[in-house]
Amino acid sequence: MAVRLPRLTQAQASLTSEVLALNEHGQQVPTAMPAERALTVYVDKRELVTLMTLGPHPEWLVLGFLRNQRIVPSAQALDSVTVDWSLGEGLVGEPGVAAVKTWAEAGVQPPPRAERVVTTGCGQGSVFGQLMDDIAGMALPAQQRMSQAQLYSLVGTIRLKETTYKSAGSVHACALFSLEGDEPRLLFFVEDVGRHNALDTVAGWAWMHPQQAHGPLAIYTTGRLTSEMVIKTAQMGIPLAISRSGITQMGYQVAQQVGLCAIGRATNRRFLCYTHPERLILQPELASPPP
Amino acid sequence: MAVRLPRLTQAQASLTSEVLALNEHGQQVPTAMPAERALTVYVDKRELVTLMTLGPHPEWLVLGFLRNQRIVPSAQALDSVTVDWSLGEGLVGEPGVAAVKTWAEAGVQPPPRAERVVTTGCGQGSVFGQLMDDIAGMALPAQQRMSQAQLYSLVGTIRLKETTYKSAGSVHACALFSLEGDEPRLLFFVEDVGRHNALDTVAGWAWMHPQQAHGPLAIYTTGRLTSEMVIKTAQMGIPLAISRSGITQMGYQVAQQVGLCAIGRATNRRFLCYTHPERLILQPELASPPP
Repeated sequence: MAVRLPRLTQAQASLTSEVLALNEHGQQVPTAMPAERALTVYVDKRELVTLMTLGPHPEWLVLGFLRNQRIVPSAQALDSVTVDWSLGEGLVGEPGVAAVKTWAEAGVQPPPRAERVVTTGCGQGSVFGQLMDDIAGMALPAQQRMSQAQLYSLVGTIRLKETTYKSAGSVHACALFSLEGDEPRLLFFVEDVGRHNALDTVAGWAWMHPQQAHGPLAIYTTGRLTSEMVIKTAQMGIPLAISRSGITQMGYQVAQQVGLCAIGRATNRRFLCYTHPERLILQPELASPPP
Repeated sequence: MAVRLPRLTQAQASLTSEVLALNEHGQQVPTAMPAERALTVYVDKRELVTLMTLGPHPEWLVLGFLRNQRIVPSAQALDSVTVDWSLGEGLVGEPGVAAVKTWAEAGVQPPPRAERVVTTGCGQGSVFGQLMDDIAGMALPAQQRMSQAQLYSLVGTIRLKETTYKSAGSVHACALFSLEGDEPRLLFFVEDVGRHNALDTVAGWAWMHPQQAHGPLAIYTTGRLTSEMVIKTAQMGIPLAISRSGITQMGYQVAQQVGLCAIGRATNRRFLCYTHPERLILQPELASPPP
């Protein structure tokens, strides 16, 4: 049965801009900066929230935000997401606008501005209130595992990406991999000014590509595995989270409880598996010799 | 005239914990993780927001949060900030509690839960709505400058700090320096799970130490200079922001507009001055020779 997916615009905006900065020798050097754009989200004409984004895929960001905040139960509840940067491109001046239209029969009740708060990350205005309920209800695929060879391949794929980070720095990346078959397959890669937005964009992409975002999956992020990153990954039903960075104590505890295998410090052939090592098929013969 | 400052508790909590992680050789290695604690803030018994924090100085974090969100006009409006971690230490289970008591005559009107949203950072639920108004009203000390020698000294001071970051990673640091005299003086240093919380804690410390947080000041942060970091620095009346990381386009634009000198990529003897170089006294003879 064909699934009815919402119609999305494909709003474009430049991701970097260049200025002349002054270096320590007093020389003017061309320096790239990532964009940071304000995008105000309206659901059925009611203002919901303003997100700050690099702007690569604003429609998927909005979708994933609505998904991860559980404001919308499925992509099928939406008629369309229309993004327009034209008023000032979301830079200082006027925010861009994302207009979300729901199907009346889906009965979506966007929270009043009142509740916008529940939305945030990065240590302020967090989702803590519902944390325990969330954890209790999560079920991750019990059998899913990943081999050390797959982990190395996945990290190697990320390393080869041409990225905004490489050209301008100051952004976080997030990627979705399929672990079907021997070689992990990169399904989707995105960068944004914040790691939460990057992960939300992955969630939005996955809703729009149900055939591809299927089977055994893993999330890669350059950001730290805080409680919220772990919860969002688990909410997507994905039991493997790999980070170039580390983990917080609450991220660890949540991963332990929900059965998610959290792997950090993943660079080159090194890594640390913090939780649920039974999901990782160790192949120490692939690692460099111990120091 | 003596200034009446609020009474604060000094709630203590451990900042790191250790677990055994599995490395690429299949070896179990003791690994430190930073704490990540939930702290629910009540103003005059009304719930305001839940912050996620490492927990080094929860009282100053709460103060600085109330300051930077402009919920409270001055420290003198508050009778006390009482933090209690005892119910579960703010880890998974029960959040810690911060009870803020205002003086009735100060007429503080904490926003309803409704407005909690305005509080956040990291790209979601941002302060954008008031951005333009904020910028228009800001006045930074016109004459304040910093020499390249002072910048190097400041970065060197940070490098020598014993930090949670060095032991456990995954946190951001923020520091307040006095630029009175030749050698910058480190007034306050703090780390937290998010760069916004670290900067808010600096703002709270500064409110409690008006004699010290006085004269020419500079902010150092390990985090990126996004619009919100720049706005918060400028709101504190500080015209110099130095980052180990880079800047976003909106951070750049805001810094330009408010007259703030934003310096990024500051490590060892290197840096990039993005905006208002007239505040930086260049001494290229102190830099390593150009490549």
